[in-house]
Amino acid sequence: MSILQTLILLSFLLSASHAAVQDFCVADLSAPEGPTGYSCKKVSAVTVNDFVFSGLGVAGNTSNLIKAAATPAFVTQFPGLNGLGLSLVRLDMAPGGVIPLHTHPGGSEVILVLEGSICAGFISSSANTTLNKGDSMIFPRGLLHFQLNAAKVPALAFVSFSSPSPGLQILDFALFANNFPSELVEATTFLDDAQVKKLKGILGGTG
Amino acid sequence: MSILQTLILLSFLLSASHAAVQDFCVADLSAPEGPTGYSCKKVSAVTVNDFVFSGLGVAGNTSNLIKAAATPAFVTQFPGLNGLGLSLVRLDMAPGGVIPLHTHPGGSEVILVLEGSICAGFISSSANTTLNKGDSMIFPRGLLHFQLNAAKVPALAFVSFSSPSPGLQILDFALFANNFPSELVEATTFLDDAQVKKLKGILGGTG
Amino acid sequence: MSILQTLILLSFLLSASHAAVQDFCVADLSAPEGPTGYSCKKVSAVTVNDFVFSGLGVAGNTSNLIKAAATPAFVTQFPGLNGLGLSLVRLDMAPGGVIPLHTHPGGSEVILVLEGSICAGFISSSANTTLNKGDSMIFPRGLLHFQLNAAKVPALAFVSFSSPSPGLQILDFALFANNFPSELVEATTFLDDAQVKKLKGILGGTG
Amino acid sequence: MSILQTLILLSFLLSASHAAVQDFCVADLSAPEGPTGYSCKKVSAVTVNDFVFSGLGVAGNTSNLIKAAATPAFVTQFPGLNGLGLSLVRLDMAPGGVIPLHTHPGGSEVILVLEGSICAGFISSSANTTLNKGDSMIFPRGLLHFQLNAAKVPALAFVSFSSPSPGLQILDFALFANNFPSELVEATTFLDDAQVKKLKGILGGTG
Amino acid sequence: MSILQTLILLSFLLSASHAAVQDFCVADLSAPEGPTGYSCKKVSAVTVNDFVFSGLGVAGNTSNLIKAAATPAFVTQFPGLNGLGLSLVRLDMAPGGVIPLHTHPGGSEVILVLEGSICAGFISSSANTTLNKGDSMIFPRGLLHFQLNAAKVPALAFVSFSSPSPGLQILDFALFANNFPSELVEATTFLDDAQVKKLKGILGGTG
Amino acid sequence: MSILQTLILLSFLLSASHAAVQDFCVADLSAPEGPTGYSCKKVSAVTVNDFVFSGLGVAGNTSNLIKAAATPAFVTQFPGLNGLGLSLVRLDMAPGGVIPLHTHPGGSEVILVLEGSICAGFISSSANTTLNKGDSMIFPRGLLHFQLNAAKVPALAFVSFSSPSPGLQILDFALFANNFPSELVEATTFLDDAQVKKLKGILGGTG
Repeated sequence: MSILQTLILLSFLLSASHAAVQDFCVADLSAPEGPTGYSCKKVSAVTVNDFVFSGLGVAGNTSNLIKAAATPAFVTQFPGLNGLGLSLVRLDMAPGGVIPLHTHPGGSEVILVLEGSICAGFISSSANTTLNKGDSMIFPRGLLHFQLNAAKVPALAFVSFSSPSPGLQILDFALFANNFPSELVEATTFLDDAQVKKLKGILGGTG
Repeated sequence: MSILQTLILLSFLLSASHAAVQDFCVADLSAPEGPTGYSCKKVSAVTVNDFVFSGLGVAGNTSNLIKAAATPAFVTQFPGLNGLGLSLVRLDMAPGGVIPLHTHPGGSEVILVLEGSICAGFISSSANTTLNKGDSMIFPRGLLHFQLNAAKVPALAFVSFSSPSPGLQILDFALFANNFPSELVEATTFLDDAQVKKLKGILGGTG
Repeated sequence: MSILQTLILLSFLLSASHAAVQDFCVADLSAPEGPTGYSCKKVSAVTVNDFVFSGLGVAGNTSNLIKAAATPAFVTQFPGLNGLGLSLVRLDMAPGGVIPLHTHPGGSEVILVLEGSICAGFISSSANTTLNKGDSMIFPRGLLHFQLNAAKVPALAFVSFSSPSPGLQILDFALFANNFPSELVEATTFLDDAQVKKLKGILGGTG
Repeated sequence: MSILQTLILLSFLLSASHAAVQDFCVADLSAPEGPTGYSCKKVSAVTVNDFVFSGLGVAGNTSNLIKAAATPAFVTQFPGLNGLGLSLVRLDMAPGGVIPLHTHPGGSEVILVLEGSICAGFISSSANTTLNKGDSMIFPRGLLHFQLNAAKVPALAFVSFSSPSPGLQILDFALFANNFPSELVEATTFLDDAQVKKLKGILGGTG
Repeated sequence: MSILQTLILLSFLLSASHAAVQDFCVADLSAPEGPTGYSCKKVSAVTVNDFVFSGLGVAGNTSNLIKAAATPAFVTQFPGLNGLGLSLVRLDMAPGGVIPLHTHPGGSEVILVLEGSICAGFISSSANTTLNKGDSMIFPRGLLHFQLNAAKVPALAFVSFSSPSPGLQILDFALFANNFPSELVEATTFLDDAQVKKLKGILGGTG
Repeated sequence: MSILQTLILLSFLLSASHAAVQDFCVADLSAPEGPTGYSCKKVSAVTVNDFVFSGLGVAGNTSNLIKAAATPAFVTQFPGLNGLGLSLVRLDMAPGGVIPLHTHPGGSEVILVLEGSICAGFISSSANTTLNKGDSMIFPRGLLHFQLNAAKVPALAFVSFSSPSPGLQILDFALFANNFPSELVEATTFLDDAQVKKLKGILGGTG
């Protein structure tokens, strides 16, 4: 028996491992999803394209009121991330741009500033600071944080998460874009009635 | 572009997070179940009722030989618990009531006594003690434990588990309500033949 | 050799398991803490008191502005919870009492109402509803939620968490009790300057 | 710069990884232990001996009443297992030998019979069967199970666990070798008083 | 109400736990697979045969060039292992037999030598040594390792993994049995062109 | 009682959460390390600098034989990453630069190309492709992979890992920079003696 035949025998194991959960589990977004992620696409249907994502190369459009854009590469955009405990977001921020206070309930984050500078912080230890090109900063899972471009030049950053779908809860959206009665929002935030109604109006909330 | 439009753009992320495993994964009890829980119900079919369970408000019927009743809110009763690492049980115990020795193979437990008093313990460190109203006690995963109402008044307690389906193995049921031959039970427990046959008779075991 | 001697031999294993991480790991609050919890107290120093906590039997004082009190049994109060993936809080709410919007970055929650009624909700799916005695409701990890007693009678609830230290981030405290400049808070929340300064004043924030 | 120098540069990473938790974490049994295992021995003190254990080559002494011996290679005997999610036990069973009903609260098990035959089972699905040489069987975490050599020749088996310290709770020891009052054991097991006192006597229990 | 009836009531919980993920989750190999394993077979269809595997009793055929055979009991061969964090492999090695350098990306390993002797090692700390009958050795997840029978007698070993599907990447297969251009292999390994082409030829690689 | 006083009471919980494992656990590199990471630095000693790392802003020196440089931000360089399941590496590659075949035993990876183009691939499914600016690609935990700059311009990429210390095993270093006897390397890789000795010579291996 040749070494070729022998290793072909051994390769039954290798083939088995192709189907194994440990090697990779590209999300089949149309199949059942469980607490730890999506079902795996059949290995026979997986191609190299499942491992590659090209959506982060183009700057997001920052011609909006917050002068910022976040382009996600979560598992729903990049199915190859399923089960790997990782995802990415591209952050473009014009001068004066802001990513308002928000949390990611499902994962921790590390930001890396590639161009310009960003004032960023998370609340818990009141850790806020200005990050310049090449600086990175952590935002632990579930804590309120923000990014703000206080400089006169555009900023670019990339953000990594410890989950393929870290989630996102933007504070303003949570407080004012819902259909909770204003009284309820006021009672649970101590904000004034006029303030709540003003932002409900802007953000499309009712009640 | 208005702030409304801008935040609507941002809300694509928010919408995406609605479908995320991290926000919630209400069990679809009819869909495939995996090692870490049930498949998630489609978000579009989820209602506020999936997050609420009303079965623990009524006392269980303790008019039975053990004078005790356990009312579960596991994932099969309360599908909203799926993937959250939590479940509850209501415990009603008449005077003299007992929850016989048992284990939960799938989760740790903490009991909180709300009315009356309960003698409880787990075996490992032979930790047993009497718990009064307001007392709580832990029972680590997989260890034999019991609860017993030695007082003259009814007792009420609530139990929390670290898993949506902690499992339950009641010792007497395990030993005597099965179809193992009596000889096998005797050989593996050192119990006397008469004892085994007596309890097999009472508990409906055969063999 | 007697069965006693034999089982004493077997008990070396049992003794070994006494020291095992799986049986229990009572927190030694003075020893190093790692990402998954505190170091374990020496087994020889563990007593039954480490497994029992009596702090939840007394109503918290609700004679305060929010007319509510939360009494925790986290790992720092109840070291026996270390490593078990569980903790508890007692919630007392006078009529009109409110637990303002907050998140638990480190764990999911299930509330169980034992007396009175509580209006509760979490934001993501805008799931809010009124819970009556015996009702339970989930609040997934990291999502903003609140509890409010809109009834004319006191309410009592117990809350279970999927972590020995779920953490707590109260929105108002996060926004207004820090030393972030008001401009920063305004830029990242879209709240008005007067609103921010008013609440900073009340809550002791500076800047 | 030579390739040697270059790779020496790269090796800073490699060296860093030597100290990394992922490569290995040999238990320092004298240092703090946490919920997920022991502290790691300093890499500079680790030798090849930490990765090897020679205690399973010798048959255990089965000249005892249960005619069986279990020789463990848990993390306390084999510190290299720390953090790896694995451990082993050697099982020697003379004819008629029995490993009485027990559970492992901290890990699942798979047995592999190498000599003779063993009748084994776990309770839940009442799964019991006779295993012959070459057969393997699973025992899920926390479920009561037993092994019994009903054949006329010695049996040898090796057991693997999914944890470096799976724990062990032998039912008879748990029930009768403690200092719980007999009445308590009887009330929580439905066993007869005579039965409880007899086995308490044999197993050295008091009370 | 008889104790029988009472325990039958209690057994609703027990029945519930039969369906629980914690008791067992036998793989349904035809149903969706997720990042943590296969979907569970319906409990009603599970038989004792799902918990037993008989494939490791027969020596593998070592009449091949590497003079060795590995017989796996991974989840695809032994569905009862699903979700349990365990699997096994039987290793038969004739004199001179070798299991070439390989890794298991998905799990750690412990080998136990039952007959003969095996020279084994893993690379990281350059831990290699000769194992004799009864010796066990760990190979941490993802590190390159090998086994080699340098003795004059056959060797038999059993290997346990910390995962039901640990995967397998055999170095030679990875480097030479693929369709990567030889230039690419050479550039990323520093191996000589002749060496790469020779082994590509033997192992059936192209390019 | 003022709202200030009330919230100060509530803030005991908040303060407790400051010390909680869930908020953050900055590595104390001098304290014990366990299987899941380093001990946490005392909260009172933590400053905003612990959350920020500035080492990735400067290009690595690619004036070496592999014409590439990898600058890590693992937990040992950036202690704030401890327990967060994340780390980063900066990759600078001159034209012709190569990161030779390697694995990360402890974590999965996603690369994002920011300048130039990189030919990258992992072996398992033989997934290799050319990545251009803005492209990202996954490399699942433990699988052999490489990066190569086949273009005429420098390339810059950032790499994220799903672990604070993913580890690194460079194939050439593993095979040739150790003190294994050449015969052993040859027997377990099928490489020719001359090839092994040549690379042992270059890479400083002995034996």
